[in-house]
This record gives sequence, structure tokens and C-alpha cells, in this order.
Amino acid sequence: MLRLNEKNLCARVTSDEVSRASASYADVLACCQGGEERHAGSLGWLHVDDWASDDTIARIEALSARLREGADTFVLIGVGGSNNASRAALCALGARGGALDGAHRVVYAGNTLSAFELRRVLEDLEGREVVIDCVAKNFETLEPGSSFRLLRQWLVERYGEKDAASRVICCGTPGSHLERLCRAHGYTFTTFPEPVGGRYTALTEVHLLPLAFAGADVRALVAGARAEEALLRDGTADPTTNAAWRYALIRRLAWDAGLRVELLSFFEPRFRWLSKWYEQLFGESEGKDGRGLLPSSAEYSEELHSLGQYVQDGTPQLMETFLDVLEPSAEDSLVLGGSDIDDRFEYLDGVDFWDVNKASFAATRAAHASALPCPTLELDRLDAEHLGRLFYFLMLSCYLSASLLGVNPFDQPGVEAYKNNMYALPGKPGYEDRKAELEARM
Amino acid sequence: MLRLNEKNLCARVTSDEVSRASASYADVLACCQGGEERHAGSLGWLHVDDWASDDTIARIEALSARLREGADTFVLIGVGGSNNASRAALCALGARGGALDGAHRVVYAGNTLSAFELRRVLEDLEGREVVIDCVAKNFETLEPGSSFRLLRQWLVERYGEKDAASRVICCGTPGSHLERLCRAHGYTFTTFPEPVGGRYTALTEVHLLPLAFAGADVRALVAGARAEEALLRDGTADPTTNAAWRYALIRRLAWDAGLRVELLSFFEPRFRWLSKWYEQLFGESEGKDGRGLLPSSAEYSEELHSLGQYVQDGTPQLMETFLDVLEPSAEDSLVLGGSDIDDRFEYLDGVDFWDVNKASFAATRAAHASALPCPTLELDRLDAEHLGRLFYFLMLSCYLSASLLGVNPFDQPGVEAYKNNMYALPGKPGYEDRKAELEARM
Repeated sequence: MLRLNEKNLCARVTSDEVSRASASYADVLACCQGGEERHAGSLGWLHVDDWASDDTIARIEALSARLREGADTFVLIGVGGSNNASRAALCALGARGGALDGAHRVVYAGNTLSAFELRRVLEDLEGREVVIDCVAKNFETLEPGSSFRLLRQWLVERYGEKDAASRVICCGTPGSHLERLCRAHGYTFTTFPEPVGGRYTALTEVHLLPLAFAGADVRALVAGARAEEALLRDGTADPTTNAAWRYALIRRLAWDAGLRVELLSFFEPRFRWLSKWYEQLFGESEGKDGRGLLPSSAEYSEELHSLGQYVQDGTPQLMETFLDVLEPSAEDSLVLGGSDIDDRFEYLDGVDFWDVNKASFAATRAAHASALPCPTLELDRLDAEHLGRLFYFLMLSCYLSASLLGVNPFDQPGVEAYKNNMYALPGKPGYEDRKAELEARM
Repeated sequence: MLRLNEKNLCARVTSDEVSRASASYADVLACCQGGEERHAGSLGWLHVDDWASDDTIARIEALSARLREGADTFVLIGVGGSNNASRAALCALGARGGALDGAHRVVYAGNTLSAFELRRVLEDLEGREVVIDCVAKNFETLEPGSSFRLLRQWLVERYGEKDAASRVICCGTPGSHLERLCRAHGYTFTTFPEPVGGRYTALTEVHLLPLAFAGADVRALVAGARAEEALLRDGTADPTTNAAWRYALIRRLAWDAGLRVELLSFFEPRFRWLSKWYEQLFGESEGKDGRGLLPSSAEYSEELHSLGQYVQDGTPQLMETFLDVLEPSAEDSLVLGGSDIDDRFEYLDGVDFWDVNKASFAATRAAHASALPCPTLELDRLDAEHLGRLFYFLMLSCYLSASLLGVNPFDQPGVEAYKNNMYALPGKPGYEDRKAELEARM
């Protein structure tokens, strides 16, 4: 299960207010439950089965099985919505060096223009058996475009043209130039679903393929998401009790109370990349028209020693959402023996780090909740099923939260200016005037 | 050189205003230049030679040379100010797996209570020759305390008691319990300087030792800091032109303009951990009394695809400080060949990623500066000398900026609440009442 714990909301945003707001904004939830408000088709992700049906999963698993036979390294070429969910899930599931099974790993390219970083990626492929997957909804973005070329050339040099082609996958929009390239050159083509915005693709084949390659249980992931979808669709439940809805309402009440930043905080470093996925999801969906909580994150307990002071006592502009896991896995336990020297930490003799970490969490939340609202998202376990729940829960909450704020969750008009500049400066045809204008200004 | 580029400050904070503010607040800078305002001794870091004299460096180099003979792995046990600067510098200098020379690496512990993470650290030591360095100004913090015990026990099991003792270093306050432990058990003791707050220790032996072990040029690092100090002390220079001072004034003017967040943004992922060091420095120094810009960071171009929308078009509460490097190293160049297929990125044929990345930076800054102030800190090169300059520059600016905001840069009163809870919950003697109270509340 995934639960919303409202015990530490503090005086600025109370559970009673949340329930009252649920009634006032009832139309927003009803619209979503009815599936009426399909902004330009981008609500596709709401229906898990549309993009992660049993057939789709079976197809992805078969492709993954073929790739795993001939490769130990899967280079995911993508940026933003095209890599964040995979990286988030693999890190959360405890991948080491990108692998869950010790043998099949996912590494990343297409997310940087740094020559230094790209050299590292190439060096890291030496001695490996490699496949590459270029994920690009529209195949115009510089980072994946340039990395795809770089890595394709690497493959051809390494394997020769024919074998290289069998090691190239592209994930793009059906009917796109990228699909035509695949047909022409014998690459494998997978579908980037048109009615799903990039940042809402966690439960589509965009991410199911790399996760399956790494050995993640994608069926459990999808089952978790379906379970959350069922909660939304349950017509007999009191809507006021829906946790994703209540979390969205808390965010709206925090906005009304003048708060302008949400920290996603956690005591388990495995959530490090999940927080990056969350930042994109909420930042791009809500940060527009001069509105939106700035999504940021804190990796505790380490960052208690950097951000803790500010959170407790700095500008009172934060709400803090904690991500908590209730049951430890076998690797989450480590008992500290007694000491051979007088280190003055006797009270730690024989304790389990799991319990100390939990105490640290409780101590922190109790302190912070005196100053700011601290809702907690509780997962029973940190496994594929619960990650599927969390992905769905946060996408749904984000959509509802943006709707409550009165902004369109699915567009990103603010990136046009830099994108156009970015095409212009390296000299993309059609951007000559803009290039001249920029160069004159500099 | 390290320069402040003010060309993109935008209408909300202009260079003229900065110069005017320099005159109005002249006393703040004068106080600092005169070294008068020594808050509880914590201005010690301002005088680089006090803590990084040639003698100190020679002693640290000798110790490092001995350690490097018998070990390939240096475990830095510390949190916050005790590890951030080392990790920032090693990452910025291009360390791979924690090593600059391919042979001597620094890894981290004492910065987490996660059993999962600690298990990884232990596994990662198998087959290595290890020394550990416990850095703890006051030896009471849970994370380094518990990790020190865990790793000491690992060393004893691996090497036996006597050899293990020769592999233990502690960095603490002279006269402390930690120093007594070192004397009693034959550990090596190094000095955590009393008049330097944890987050201002970048240029002290706290960090010089791990950096020397990894093979960094600590003399160049210190020389860079000394050069920045000389600029501050130059009595003949017009104070209005001091870059660290002007950057502090820009931050104050941004505050006056209602901005509440500073993003430190960069296009080179080697600055990833530098940004964490910056977040602690500014967050703990300024985030108090209900004031302070929230320090956050953005790793571009990747995070243009997550945070870019918010920065351009979300709640207008940000200033954005860019960190830029002007001259590439050999590894910063990578030329993209032409394509064998019609990938529609012809305009990238034969370009160097260094130039594309620079174009991306220029495109982004030009777009963002239409909405928010975008000062840029420019380093000629990314090397030890320039890192030393940057550390000193940012510490000085932070101190001046906090003074301009009217808060004490050197305390952190806001962390007392959680720290006391954190001692109480695992059962530290002396905290019984607090423990009972907390448990009753939960």
C-alpha cells in the first residue's frame, strides 16, 4: 500500500481544511475521474492498460530477452522524461553500477552536451557488449540527437554495419522521421505513445524496455500502477478519502498559505533519482504563468547537515513532503556491535542502523513540523509494485495539483525561448535571423 | 582568474544599483577587510596562511605520502563541512571512482545512516588496502560516530589490532576526547581548527589530507585561495570593484527585489558536488531568523529538461548564478563526425561538443536573463588553483552576504531541535525526558 500520513501538517494547513477544500474543488476530481478533460490527448497515461497492457508487456519482455542474450550494457539515450523514470526506478530498486542482476546494466547518454561526460560514457563501454536505445518523442533535441550519432558510430566501428544495426533500438512517435530511419536501416522501433507527455511516460514502453533489460519486475511495476488507478476509479469510495487527491489539495492549500517551495525529503539514498523525476514532473507541469511551488529535494540524513538549518529557520516558504518506507528489506538491516574503545557512543551498542535511521527521521519530522507542513507518503516496501504505485500516485497528484492551481499540466511554453536560441547558435537551418540577433546582443 | 560577469543581471538588479549599494554598505566590507568583526573566532578561515601555511602543507603531504604507500582507498568519515569540500574538489578535478591518478581513491562514509548504503561501502572495500579518516569537530554527531565504529571494527578484523591502528586518522579539535582516543590507541591525529566553522574548512587540513591522498595539487589549491585573499586585502583597489563583494551585493539586491531562491547553474557535470558544498555554505550561513535565499542548483543542460520551464516561467522568485569555465582541457573536446544516415542533424557535422555546450549555455542565459538576474562566475580553467579561488571567493561572498542580510554567518541555531530529538530517540543518556515527550506525541 501507499498511504498519505497527514499527522504532521502543522497549523498552516490542517486535515480539516483539506477535507473542506475537497468539497469546494469537487469538480476538478470529478472531471478527472470521468476522463472528460483530455487536454490535447495528454491524459493518456491515466489509463495504465492503454500503454502497458499484458500484450505490450509480453512484447517488451520478448525484446528484452533477445537483447539480454547479446548484450550486457544498454545505453539509454534520452533526456528528461525519456530517462528520468528508468533511472529513478533502477536506483530505488537498488541497482549497482546500473544492474539489478549483477550482469545487465543500463547506462545513460543523450542527457549531456559535456564532452568530458561523453568521453566517460565511451570509455566505460570498452570491453562490453552494447545495445543502444534512442528515446526521442520528436527527434529534434540536441542532446539525444548528438549522442545517438556518436554512439551509432561507436557501434559501427565496434561491430561492423550489419551487426551494429541489430543493436540499435529507437523509441519514437509512430509515423516520425525516426521510425522511417529504423525501417530504412534495420533498427528496432518501439513506440513513444503520442497521447502521453514525456514526463508522464513512466509506465509505458519508453521505460519498460530498459527496466526489463536490467532485470526489474515490470509486471509488478505495472500492477502497482493499476492498483492506484483502481482507487481513483472506485465510484463507491468517498472522494474526500482519495490520497492522491488529498495530497494535491495540501499542495494547493500550501500555495494559498504563501508557501512557494516543496522539498521532497527522504532518509534512503535509493530515492536520489526518484527525486529528480519528481522535480521534472512537478516543475514542468506546474511552473508556468508565474505560478507553482518550486520542486526541490533533500537527501537526509546527509543534507540535514546542509539544508536542515534553512528548512527549520530560514525564509518560511517551504512545505516538506517526506517519502518513507515502512518495512526493511534484508539489506536494510545492519547491526552495530559494541565498541572496543571508549567512543562515548555506548547508546548505539547493538542497535540496527535501520532503527537509528528511523529515529533520525522521526526526530527531524517532529522538529520541522513545528515550522512547516510535513505530509508523508508511506510505502509498505521499496519494491517494483510500490514504485509503480508511487509513479502513478505522483503523476495523478501532479495533474490534479496543476489543475487546482489553474495551469495546464501538459504543456511547457517556457522552454521555447532557450530552445530556439539553442537551435540558432550552433547554426540549425531556419534559425539564421535569431542567430544574428543573439550574436549582436552578446 | 575568477571574474564576475554582470552582463545579464536583467532589469530587476542592475550594475549601477550594485555600485550604489557598495557605497551604502561600505562599512560591512571595511569591517571584513580590517578583520575586526571576529564573531566568536569563526573568521579564522579568512586568513588562508593561518591554516594552510607552507609548513602545514608540507606536514600533510608527508602524512599523505606515508598513507599512499600502504593504501589505495581512503575512507573519509564525515558529514557536512567535513566531507563536502573534498568531494566537491575531487569531482570538479575529474576524479574517476574517487581517484585522480587511477590508483588512490577517496570514498565516503559517516554521511548516512542508511544500512543499505553502508553495506555498499563495506562491500566496496573488499580487496582494497584501506585507511580511514574520521573528521569530527565535536565527536557527538551520530553519522560519523556510528560509521567510525563500524569501519574501525572492519579494519581490526581485516588487519589485526596493531596494523589497524596505523590505518586510523582522526581530525578533531585539539584537547578533545577524540584527540585523547588517538593518543591512547596510537591513531594519527590531525587538527580541525577551532576558529573555523565546519562549512568554512575547505582550505584547512580537514580537506587538504584527503585531497593530497587522491593526488590533487593542494599547493595550487591554496595558492588560488591566497590570490583571492590578496584581492581582498589590496588597500589600493577601489572596494567597489571587488568581485566577491559585488556578488554579495547582488544577492542582497535580489532579496530586496523579493527574490527568495538562488539557483547555482552550470553546464559541466563536474560541478555536481561543488553545488552541494555551496548549498551547505549559503544555506546554513544565511537561512535563519526567517531570512535567506534558498540555495539550490541546476545541472544543465540535463536539467533544462526538468527545471527549465519553472526557471523561465514559474513563480518569479529566482535569481540564477551561472558557473562557467572559459578554457577547455584536453578532455573537454570531442568532435562529432558526419553522419552515415540522414539523421537531420547536419548542422552538427564536425562540431566540437565543447562549442555546442557553450552555445547551449549562451542560449539559456540569454533566455533566462529576460526574466531573472543571471550573474556569472567565470573561471579561466577548471584546475586546482581555480578551485582554490572559487572556494575562497564563495566563502567570502557568503560571509559578506549574510552580514548584508543582518544574520550571523557562523551559527546554526535551527538544527538544535532535530539534533536534540535525534540524540533522544536512540536513547542517548541525558535526553530521557525529551525521549518520553517525543514518544508520547507520536
